[in-house]
Amino acid sequence: MLEKIDLGKHIDDHTYAKKIAPLYQRLGVLQRVHWDLRVPIIIVVEGWNASGITSVIGELIQYLDPRGFVLHSIGSPKDEERARPLLWRFWTRTPARGRMAIFARSWYSRSLAEQVSGIDWKSRIKRAIFDINTFERQLTDDGVVIIKFFLHISKEEQKRRLNEREKDALTSWMITQGDWDFHAHYDDYLPIIEDYISGTDTRHCPWTVVGATDGNYTRFKVYSTVIRTLEEKQKVLEKKRQDKCGPALPKPPRNRIRRVAEAPRQYTRAEYEKILRECQEQVHNIQYLLFKRRIPLIIVYEGWDAAGKGGNIMRLVRAMNPRGYDVVPIARPDQTELEHHYLWRFYRRFPAAGHITIFDRSWYGRVLVERIEGFCEEKEWKRAYHEINEMEEAYVEGGGGLIKFWLEVSKEEQYRRFIARQNDVLKEWKMTEEDWRNREKWKEYEKAVDEMLARTSTGIAPWTVIESDDKYYARLKAIQTVIAYGRKVLE
Amino acid sequence: MLEKIDLGKHIDDHTYAKKIAPLYQRLGVLQRVHWDLRVPIIIVVEGWNASGITSVIGELIQYLDPRGFVLHSIGSPKDEERARPLLWRFWTRTPARGRMAIFARSWYSRSLAEQVSGIDWKSRIKRAIFDINTFERQLTDDGVVIIKFFLHISKEEQKRRLNEREKDALTSWMITQGDWDFHAHYDDYLPIIEDYISGTDTRHCPWTVVGATDGNYTRFKVYSTVIRTLEEKQKVLEKKRQDKCGPALPKPPRNRIRRVAEAPRQYTRAEYEKILRECQEQVHNIQYLLFKRRIPLIIVYEGWDAAGKGGNIMRLVRAMNPRGYDVVPIARPDQTELEHHYLWRFYRRFPAAGHITIFDRSWYGRVLVERIEGFCEEKEWKRAYHEINEMEEAYVEGGGGLIKFWLEVSKEEQYRRFIARQNDVLKEWKMTEEDWRNREKWKEYEKAVDEMLARTSTGIAPWTVIESDDKYYARLKAIQTVIAYGRKVLE
Repeated sequence: MLEKIDLGKHIDDHTYAKKIAPLYQRLGVLQRVHWDLRVPIIIVVEGWNASGITSVIGELIQYLDPRGFVLHSIGSPKDEERARPLLWRFWTRTPARGRMAIFARSWYSRSLAEQVSGIDWKSRIKRAIFDINTFERQLTDDGVVIIKFFLHISKEEQKRRLNEREKDALTSWMITQGDWDFHAHYDDYLPIIEDYISGTDTRHCPWTVVGATDGNYTRFKVYSTVIRTLEEKQKVLEKKRQDKCGPALPKPPRNRIRRVAEAPRQYTRAEYEKILRECQEQVHNIQYLLFKRRIPLIIVYEGWDAAGKGGNIMRLVRAMNPRGYDVVPIARPDQTELEHHYLWRFYRRFPAAGHITIFDRSWYGRVLVERIEGFCEEKEWKRAYHEINEMEEAYVEGGGGLIKFWLEVSKEEQYRRFIARQNDVLKEWKMTEEDWRNREKWKEYEKAVDEMLARTSTGIAPWTVIESDDKYYARLKAIQTVIAYGRKVLE
Repeated sequence: MLEKIDLGKHIDDHTYAKKIAPLYQRLGVLQRVHWDLRVPIIIVVEGWNASGITSVIGELIQYLDPRGFVLHSIGSPKDEERARPLLWRFWTRTPARGRMAIFARSWYSRSLAEQVSGIDWKSRIKRAIFDINTFERQLTDDGVVIIKFFLHISKEEQKRRLNEREKDALTSWMITQGDWDFHAHYDDYLPIIEDYISGTDTRHCPWTVVGATDGNYTRFKVYSTVIRTLEEKQKVLEKKRQDKCGPALPKPPRNRIRRVAEAPRQYTRAEYEKILRECQEQVHNIQYLLFKRRIPLIIVYEGWDAAGKGGNIMRLVRAMNPRGYDVVPIARPDQTELEHHYLWRFYRRFPAAGHITIFDRSWYGRVLVERIEGFCEEKEWKRAYHEINEMEEAYVEGGGGLIKFWLEVSKEEQYRRFIARQNDVLKEWKMTEEDWRNREKWKEYEKAVDEMLARTSTGIAPWTVIESDDKYYARLKAIQTVIAYGRKVLE
């Protein structure tokens, strides 16, 4: 097997310098990306003695963030390691999520050394290969990326290098009798190493065998293989994330819609009642004209709990012809509704030509309560903004009228109303534990509301915020908005 | 575009009968599969007048379970439909999850008829195509499978068929002046139909245009296309499911391990104390021999809350040399532990040669509490059975000893112990609300425990159930099991 490796590959210094430079930065980026993606990375560099393991690793770590990796140089085991199974030493060294562990020699060298020294070593090697495959598979199943290199040189090359190092005063101390013994048995080890490599060259954890005669080529091959592997892993993970959460949404438009709870002016009771009566008459007329002109109208009420949706709707419809409007309160979907597309139940209640349908809560539940409470998946509520815009656009372009109210109350006013409701026997039924629970999630809901207003206030179907801390003001503003809209549509 | 469709395709009756027969059963199976997978299916059959839509659908539904599909024959709209946008009629007819809706003509025919009859129809068709694509994309985004057919015949063939039907007393009533008018304008409609088809031939919802001159060919083409599409969808969904939940596990072995809480015999206090003392001496000796022989031993305690794990362990270790054993209580993993493979924290605590490690709860938490409480994904705990078996096997084959206890108490006895603990100032701290919550999930836990015992009681690492309603019995059985195991290992 190893005889098929081309040992003649070579890159000259000039080309190397040119090719490796852009890779340095790339590896740094990939390290950060995988840190963020929480992918643990194991890089194993194995090879013959003097094959250049240290030089390869030296290059590899040069531009890595040192907080993100640990280098394990594996030699003879310590006492506490010797007292435990071989792989125990490596299990305890597996990197945390997002971190990188680089092994200069690894379970492979140790396994080879420890099996070969024992009796019955041939069958023990089979067992060792089985255990290593299990170890590596359990880690990759858990999301670890393992990249394995074997640096291959010929016996002659090894001899040349050992001699060279021995002659050099700076490196001679590195060469021991053990190296020469191992060298003498090069041909005996070769088939065993081949067994290890072919036995552990698995789909989830393949080997890259590098013809390591030339240092430049070796370093470049290892460097670029690490980069390619990490790039592939990144792609796979991003695809998975997208399948699960949907594509990242573009930022919502900058001109956020301000939610204001405080009324800009106050009405006396008498004023309020007078204006309200006048408005109700006008609404009555507008309803009739819409009916004559066969224009359907949808009015959506969304808002905080206790924002006054019910009371507001009641004043709006009081003067309407009851045969021409529907108020549709939206609660949790029932079983049949859950069995369909979430827009289905709203389509079913769309007004016929000339009719008015008032939704007390609406399809916007998808991006509010369903989002916050996890009743739908992230990718579903993310998709919903666009789906809702499409639905509203088609409906309006088909000749329908659409008004959308967001009733804003301050958190303090909501609290006062909650307490008042609890103390009022007539309104007590309105209060549930859920209201208090939702209130606890005020911040989360605020985020969802702002995102909803920004993403679904379109030219064709804008939101109107109703300042609802003052009920008189809120009711008049809503009814006046309906009148103004109706007049425009009827123009 | 349509001129490229081969109108000469033909299947003779004999071949047809032979080819269609196996498909009947296949479609029935696929219907049930998608019912179970909760996939809504829409089949649209469109085509020229007299192109054979009815005949195709007749064949299609022949072997379908009638409870699972609805056939919608789309003609002129009813009043309530006319008062609403065109697609509203079809939104309300979308099938529920797992059901099938077959449309004999659809939004396409209606859109064509209604646009062409109006003014400014060319730009209205563009808008209609846009709306239809939106409609179909919203449905397929939600998981609906839409299969669309257009049955194409030539003008001459249409004329021949209309004449033929008019001559036949049984079918002549079906042919109206409208059919002939439409026929007369065949060449005018052709480019509009082509616009519709090419404008709505999307990736998520492609058309199958069938050269429908020959009835056998047409029916076979539609039938086999439906089957192929559903088969592909099934594959995609099963792949998705597997990515999410892991592969389906094989059934656990039939010989379930019986969990018995009631002790088969009772000890008096004096008996118990005498036997316990004798046992403890033996455990002491065994510990020494294991140490001398450098054999590591792991003892795993799992069991219901309040099953008496703590008291049992205390009696076991009382005579042991404290320098040679560790008791490792396993609680929730800390942050560092969560950052690694879940087995990592257990590997770190594995005993050195000659030592004993007692796990008070263990890696089995993965398939018990983490499974029930959703702390890990389904595919993770499913994978864990195999991973645990592998880990235990490698450890035992590497020369380690392993004993696994399941401490079984009855639900009644647990209740008595909970109450007793709550009333005992010394034991009160042991009780948390979580204990009561876990108790509420008794049935779920039972299922997980049974599956754990069945899947991880291997020849090399079997479970021992300790009947723990009686504490004396339970303690003696555990310690005697350790002694027997130790003797066997030391043999």
